[in-house]
Amino acid sequence: MLIAVDAVGGDHYPKNPVLGAIEALKVDDSIEILLLGPEDLIQTELLGLEYDQNRLHIQHAPEIIGMQDSPSAAVKSKRSSSIAIGISAHKNGDCDAFVSAGNTGALLAASTLILGKLEGVIRPTISATYPTLKGISLLIDAGANLDLKPEMYLQFAKMGSIFSTEILNKSNPTIGLLNIGEEPEKGTDCHKEVYKLLSELDEFKGNIEGKDILYGATDIYLTDGFTGNVVLKFGESIPGVLKLLLSKTMEEEKVAPEVQKQLYTILTKGLNTFNYEHVGGVPFLGVNGTSLVGHGGSSPMAIKNMILNAAQCVTHKLNDKIVASLN
Amino acid sequence: MLIAVDAVGGDHYPKNPVLGAIEALKVDDSIEILLLGPEDLIQTELLGLEYDQNRLHIQHAPEIIGMQDSPSAAVKSKRSSSIAIGISAHKNGDCDAFVSAGNTGALLAASTLILGKLEGVIRPTISATYPTLKGISLLIDAGANLDLKPEMYLQFAKMGSIFSTEILNKSNPTIGLLNIGEEPEKGTDCHKEVYKLLSELDEFKGNIEGKDILYGATDIYLTDGFTGNVVLKFGESIPGVLKLLLSKTMEEEKVAPEVQKQLYTILTKGLNTFNYEHVGGVPFLGVNGTSLVGHGGSSPMAIKNMILNAAQCVTHKLNDKIVASLN
Repeated sequence: MLIAVDAVGGDHYPKNPVLGAIEALKVDDSIEILLLGPEDLIQTELLGLEYDQNRLHIQHAPEIIGMQDSPSAAVKSKRSSSIAIGISAHKNGDCDAFVSAGNTGALLAASTLILGKLEGVIRPTISATYPTLKGISLLIDAGANLDLKPEMYLQFAKMGSIFSTEILNKSNPTIGLLNIGEEPEKGTDCHKEVYKLLSELDEFKGNIEGKDILYGATDIYLTDGFTGNVVLKFGESIPGVLKLLLSKTMEEEKVAPEVQKQLYTILTKGLNTFNYEHVGGVPFLGVNGTSLVGHGGSSPMAIKNMILNAAQCVTHKLNDKIVASLN
Repeated sequence: MLIAVDAVGGDHYPKNPVLGAIEALKVDDSIEILLLGPEDLIQTELLGLEYDQNRLHIQHAPEIIGMQDSPSAAVKSKRSSSIAIGISAHKNGDCDAFVSAGNTGALLAASTLILGKLEGVIRPTISATYPTLKGISLLIDAGANLDLKPEMYLQFAKMGSIFSTEILNKSNPTIGLLNIGEEPEKGTDCHKEVYKLLSELDEFKGNIEGKDILYGATDIYLTDGFTGNVVLKFGESIPGVLKLLLSKTMEEEKVAPEVQKQLYTILTKGLNTFNYEHVGGVPFLGVNGTSLVGHGGSSPMAIKNMILNAAQCVTHKLNDKIVASLN
């Protein structure tokens, strides 16, 4: 299986994508990697590193889509970017999946535009793994679709459920609808309609509220892309805020330096639960192909996990299962 | 000045409203208090307490609207509840303001229905004080209005600005629009239109994102009531989640009991910033009267602060200033 990896995606390219790719080759014998980006940049990064040369390939892609580029404009104008070339290669069957820690909007636009939608899908979606006290939940939609029709929530629930089962190893993942109260009649007319639609699923556990998110109330958190994006970024800010707050408190309380050090160690270990850098990427659910996006700050380990996730999506025939569940 | 206090509102009635009222009498000589609720309940609670009997009055209101009651049904059916009687008394000029830590939906419904709207106001709003690393910000709307027209955001911005200036003692409070990215063209069509409307205000600092909330990016966070409610409840859950997370980590790390105790002390002090029980209530902005709502878990101190806030709203002629700013 050949996985295409965007070597110039994310905040730490080409280092982290290259290191992550090499790590993935070490742990999964069944895959080969195609690194996409400016060839000289990739070759320089590879200098001195040990890896299986027979399983690591390079495809020159001179243009780079930056994290701040306008998604639709970038996809249209940068035809020889790693994203455009990589996803086109996947479309043409030259590789089995594409992964990137780059510009999420551009990746979604290119994936939808080039790969198209799976049969029966109204709109593809971006989900995000969300760390909670009970482990990882899946937040869906995390920013792709701001105005949703009720039927889209139902499709997102089904697609998220298949992803959670097949890739996140959950059995019978539970589904919650993010709302402003527990009762079925809470929220907008759309939410009330969604509640009724979701009630046909055994896994639907009703509405959840903002206060339930960090506790891991359900395995899947369904919401619109606006609320989802706010909740995602809010959650990501918590570890940094807490560290600032507690270091200020320790200064004020004149805590001895050796105790401060010990408390930082505990804090860092505890907050590691919420560290997004360790989480691999997730696929755009609903596109006709296997295209994964990771956090811009992805570490080599996160890239490695995203590549392994991509291989799992292919092996588990995720898209076939999605089509079967929707039609 | 006579402030009516709902003695049976919130999770800890009649104790916390009664104690909070007595505290308020002690610190502000200019006010008198009217406690509303079942008279025997209030009298029993007052037994043995020291307070100025000439300034504390009781109005019998036999019915209680519970925290779980359906707002509109409760307001219609429970005509002799503390909420209905108190707000009607305010409408008739028998008291200068009404405060409650009770059922927010019922309070908004009764306030809007009985007091009506201020001249020029499209829809009254619920705001919430939001603790951040930089102090208190104002989140508006916090759950009253789920579908907003662009003009409503502008009105909320103006009303929130006056409240922040007059009651929260901010000078030239800054305004941020909660969105999914910094750029003016982010969000729904409504958000793009709102961005343009807000740009006429000097205090508008552009879009803010979920990651900016806890840092205190602006003094006022504008958003729709759905997102606002989720963000409010999410924020409230953080202290509890953090305590669970760190106590679990300390157990796993076999931290010595004396160090555990020290960390808890620091954690509790630091997290006190985010403790909603210490925050007084806020008025429903846009109603033709002074009606304040506090957190259901309000402590006596929070009730006291809410009463003092109510007095400030009256003294500062908050509503006159709102009408002047909107018309």
